[in-house]
Amino acid sequence: MVQAYILIQTEVGQAAEVANRIRGIAGVEEAHDVTGPYDVIVQAKADDIDALGTLVVARIQRLEGIDRTLTCPIVNI
Amino acid sequence: MVQAYILIQTEVGQAAEVANRIRGIAGVEEAHDVTGPYDVIVQAKADDIDALGTLVVARIQRLEGIDRTLTCPIVNI
Amino acid sequence: MVQAYILIQTEVGQAAEVANRIRGIAGVEEAHDVTGPYDVIVQAKADDIDALGTLVVARIQRLEGIDRTLTCPIVNI
Amino acid sequence: MVQAYILIQTEVGQAAEVANRIRGIAGVEEAHDVTGPYDVIVQAKADDIDALGTLVVARIQRLEGIDRTLTCPIVNI
Amino acid sequence: MVQAYILIQTEVGQAAEVANRIRGIAGVEEAHDVTGPYDVIVQAKADDIDALGTLVVARIQRLEGIDRTLTCPIVNI
Amino acid sequence: MVQAYILIQTEVGQAAEVANRIRGIAGVEEAHDVTGPYDVIVQAKADDIDALGTLVVARIQRLEGIDRTLTCPIVNI
Amino acid sequence: MVQAYILIQTEVGQAAEVANRIRGIAGVEEAHDVTGPYDVIVQAKADDIDALGTLVVARIQRLEGIDRTLTCPIVNI
Amino acid sequence: MVQAYILIQTEVGQAAEVANRIRGIAGVEEAHDVTGPYDVIVQAKADDIDALGTLVVARIQRLEGIDRTLTCPIVNI
Repeated sequence: MVQAYILIQTEVGQAAEVANRIRGIAGVEEAHDVTGPYDVIVQAKADDIDALGTLVVARIQRLEGIDRTLTCPIVNI
Repeated sequence: MVQAYILIQTEVGQAAEVANRIRGIAGVEEAHDVTGPYDVIVQAKADDIDALGTLVVARIQRLEGIDRTLTCPIVNI
Repeated sequence: MVQAYILIQTEVGQAAEVANRIRGIAGVEEAHDVTGPYDVIVQAKADDIDALGTLVVARIQRLEGIDRTLTCPIVNI
Repeated sequence: MVQAYILIQTEVGQAAEVANRIRGIAGVEEAHDVTGPYDVIVQAKADDIDALGTLVVARIQRLEGIDRTLTCPIVNI
Repeated sequence: MVQAYILIQTEVGQAAEVANRIRGIAGVEEAHDVTGPYDVIVQAKADDIDALGTLVVARIQRLEGIDRTLTCPIVNI
Repeated sequence: MVQAYILIQTEVGQAAEVANRIRGIAGVEEAHDVTGPYDVIVQAKADDIDALGTLVVARIQRLEGIDRTLTCPIVNI
Repeated sequence: MVQAYILIQTEVGQAAEVANRIRGIAGVEEAHDVTGPYDVIVQAKADDIDALGTLVVARIQRLEGIDRTLTCPIVNI
Repeated sequence: MVQAYILIQTEVGQAAEVANRIRGIAGVEEAHDVTGPYDVIVQAKADDIDALGTLVVARIQRLEGIDRTLTCPIVNI
C-alpha cells in the first residue's frame, strides 16, 4: 500500500468545485481547499506506485478544472 | 479581521486592466501593477480566513484576465 | 479553529529526524516523510491564523534540521 | 519616485525579528509577517530604480536573518 | 534611462518565431533563443521604469506565442 | 555529440500518451512517466547544442499534450 | 522494483565531485552533470518506494556537497 | 562557439561585489546587477558546451558570494 499527498493547482475560480469532485473518487481519503501556491490538497492511497500514478492521471486529472497536480508519495525511512 | 497580500499573475497583456477591475471589489484596499514574477499585487481584508478565501476564489478569480493568484495572509506573531 | 498543511524542506539527510521531532509538538496532528520537492508534510491546527503563525515560527521552525516551511491554511469556501 | 513591494524569505524562526528590524529603515513604509512562500512583505519607496536597488542590497539585505529578497517595483502602465 | 533583461516563456513550438517578432520592436536591443526554464532572453531599454513596463505589457506581451514574461531591470548599486 | 535530459510537464491526463509519442522521435533514447513536478523525463542526443534545440522545439514541442519542456544538457566538467 | 530519476542541486563548485561520489553508491545506475536549474541528474533503482526514500536520504544526501534533491519515481500508467 | 546567459543568485548583500568579480573572468562579456528573482545576469561564451560548464563550475561558482547559478545556453533554431 502507498499513501500520498497530492498538491493541486486548479483553474481560477474552480477550487471549491474541484475539491468536491475529488472527494467522490475511490482511493481519496481527504480533499481540502487551501490558500497559498496550491488550491486543493488531497490525501489518497493505492496498491503501489503504479496504481497511484494511474489514480492521479486517469482519475483525478480527468476532472474538469484541474491545471496541475504534484504527487508526493509518503515514504517510511 | 484578516488582512492579506494577494500576488497575481495575469494573462499576457492584461496587467493594467486586471488591476483596474480589482480596485472595484469590496474588501480590496490597494492594487498595483508590478514587474517581476507577479503582475499585480493586491492588499485586501476580510472577516476571517474563510471569508478571505471566498473573496479570492469567488470575486477576484472570476475577473477576466487572471491566470494564478497566491494569497499571503498577514500574521501577528 | 484554523487547520493547515505545512510543507517542509529539511536540511539534507534530516527528513526522518525532523518528522519525528514535529510529531511531539502540541497542535500537530500528523507528520509524514514524502518524496518530491518537499521532505515532510504536516497537518496541524490552531485557534486562529495568528496562533497558526506562531506555531510555525516559534515551535516548528525552532527545531533542528528545518530549511524552509510553507504553510497552507485550509479554507471553507 | 519609485515604489516597490519587497517579498522576503527569512531564516527559519526569524520572521518576527526581521519585520521589526526592517520597519526602522528609512524609505520603508510597511513591513508585515505573512504565511506562504514568503515570510515578510515590505512596501518601500526610493528616488529611482538605482536607489531602490541600493536600499535593498545595502540596507535590508545587511540585516541579520534575511535569506532571499525579491523586489517588485510598481509600474504605472 | 532604464535597461532590463526580459526572460520569456513561449507557448510550445513558438520560440524561434517569438524571438524574431521581438527583434522588430523599438527599444529591443537583442533577443536570443535559449534552453532551460526560459525560451527567449531579451535585452531592452526605456526612458524609465514606467516606460519599461509599458514596453513589456503593451508591446512584447501583445505578440502571438508568449506565455509569461519576467522583467529584470538593471540596477547600478 | 550532445546528450540531454528533457523534463516535461504535460497537459493534465496526457502523460502516458505523451511518453509514447516521444519514444518514436529520432534522437530520443528513453522516455518515462514520473511523479513529482514533471510528468515525463526524456533522454535524447543530438549533433550539437543547436540541433538539440531544434529537436526539442521543432519535434518534441510539436506533439499534442505538451505544456512545458526543460532541457538539461549533459556537460563533462 | 522502483526506478527513479533524482534531480540534484549541489553546493556551488561541487557538481563534478558530487556526480563522481554518487556513481559509487549501490542502486545508482547513472549520474551526469547537467546545466540548468539542476546540477546532477541520477538514475537509480530500489526494491520499493520506502527503500528508494532510504537510498536518497540515508546514502545520497549524506554525501558532501549536496544542497537539495528531488526524487521523481518512474510510474507505469 | 557557445554563448550563454548565466542567471545568478548571490548571498544577501553581495550582488555588487559579485558582479565586479565576474567581470574579470575570461569568457565573460557582460555582468549586471538586476532586481527580481536573480541578482546578477552574465553573458559569456566558450568553445563548446563542456567548456561552458567548466567556466561556470570551475571559475564563476568558485567566487565568494555566489549562492546559485542557472546557465541558459543560446541556441540557433
